[in-house]
Amino acid sequence: MTMQTVSLNKSHGGTQGVYKHASRETKTDMTFSVYVPPHSDGAKLPVVWYLSGLTCTHANVTEKGEFRSVCAQLGLIFVAPDTSPRGEGVPGDPANAYDVGLCAGFYVEATKGPVARNYRMWSYVTEELAELVAEQFPVDPKRQSILGHSMGGHGALTAALRHRGRYRAASAFAPIVAPSQVPWGIKALSGYLGDNKETWRGHDAVALIENGARFSDLLVDYGDADPFLAEQLRPELLQAACERANIPLTLHRQEGYDHSYYFISTFMSDHLRWHAARLNA
Amino acid sequence: MTMQTVSLNKSHGGTQGVYKHASRETKTDMTFSVYVPPHSDGAKLPVVWYLSGLTCTHANVTEKGEFRSVCAQLGLIFVAPDTSPRGEGVPGDPANAYDVGLCAGFYVEATKGPVARNYRMWSYVTEELAELVAEQFPVDPKRQSILGHSMGGHGALTAALRHRGRYRAASAFAPIVAPSQVPWGIKALSGYLGDNKETWRGHDAVALIENGARFSDLLVDYGDADPFLAEQLRPELLQAACERANIPLTLHRQEGYDHSYYFISTFMSDHLRWHAARLNA
Repeated sequence: MTMQTVSLNKSHGGTQGVYKHASRETKTDMTFSVYVPPHSDGAKLPVVWYLSGLTCTHANVTEKGEFRSVCAQLGLIFVAPDTSPRGEGVPGDPANAYDVGLCAGFYVEATKGPVARNYRMWSYVTEELAELVAEQFPVDPKRQSILGHSMGGHGALTAALRHRGRYRAASAFAPIVAPSQVPWGIKALSGYLGDNKETWRGHDAVALIENGARFSDLLVDYGDADPFLAEQLRPELLQAACERANIPLTLHRQEGYDHSYYFISTFMSDHLRWHAARLNA
Repeated sequence: MTMQTVSLNKSHGGTQGVYKHASRETKTDMTFSVYVPPHSDGAKLPVVWYLSGLTCTHANVTEKGEFRSVCAQLGLIFVAPDTSPRGEGVPGDPANAYDVGLCAGFYVEATKGPVARNYRMWSYVTEELAELVAEQFPVDPKRQSILGHSMGGHGALTAALRHRGRYRAASAFAPIVAPSQVPWGIKALSGYLGDNKETWRGHDAVALIENGARFSDLLVDYGDADPFLAEQLRPELLQAACERANIPLTLHRQEGYDHSYYFISTFMSDHLRWHAARLNA
């Protein structure tokens, strides 16, 4: 597998890189970022996957996430994929929509209509990019974890629930926890997967738990001033599902915080310490 | 004095605000950002001024500077002004130049030709915005300090040297230290101040020190992989001037770092701790 280096910058003692490659899954060029902390020669490091939300690329968290200082301290590699296929002429990108199409791949495998060719973000993130990162960076593939924000929180929770053996820790900032039940999710899942709601359950954290998926424990932070809280995020649905399934969920309601990177960057360090404790256990 | 609130976001326990006002100095609308850390009612807090470099607005450091966590911890207000007058039809903005005109006010008082009307960033930052901030935020005006990057490092050093009583600490990331002697500075100073080089000395840190200006001590960090180091920054000129004038200069050459916010954000915490030690002394 090959990739090109777009940029490399020394930061907090390590290296923040941005890379590009031709993806077999999305059939487009894809860009992603990887921070490699300072480490000794030959070391194999734990890797944290960060999945971004609607309207984002790899760049938002890379610039605003405030993760490098703590990753340097804890010895974590931090990978930020893009959120959809990219480029001119990718079918399935409606004009004037931020919640479906480019920047809104929803970390699913599209099966329906013209989107099925390129919108394969599930395989892209959990398979193809995982292989590429394992090949190109000093990663210990036995120590991986995943977190994300909003749509990316949905992606992180579903990836963790479906690949329990792969990810040792999972957490989310303001995640969409039950896409089958909220407007953003209904629009995206019907657009990518079609009208058979049974197929949606494989990309819905609450439904996966209802169907028997389990995880060691989960951490979720959300802000009570988040404008999307009541209609799109609905953390109480995850809380209820976890209670019924006996999955320990640490759910923090953060007073006065909204949906932005000002919120995410505030709690990034807490989440990465949660991950490191499980990755190094 | 009045201002409008553009945005407010809770972050690291405090509030990151962006504000707009009609400036009497630049005769345009101006935008700036202020982070106010968590504090008790009625407290008056020390304030750190951050001056940005070429091509920047208030937004670059606000998004990428990684200053909020440490400002929250140390109880510092952090103010980020813009770098030039703004808006359509400001005279003196040549096409295809990033180093003079919009985004490149150089923190001087323009005296020559059409730029003289609006390019008054010296008075804007050190007088007008200082008054507005003191009026609108819980600031202790006796505890102010200043830092900056590149062109803004030049601005911070000259402001500190000319207002020794006002700023209790001063530092810079990769500053232009002798604009009279380097291409960026020669272009800007001749454009804003005209050809009489004697007038340039009031906006040149090395020349100010040669002319007798003094400061308690200074901190400068630069990266040895900074592409502008040898031609535009020339920290050795500041080092020599400080040695001759007995100004204690802590000069850190940081191996492998470049001119970007990946560099700045790495050392932001060190600089703010240096400022806090002097602001709280």
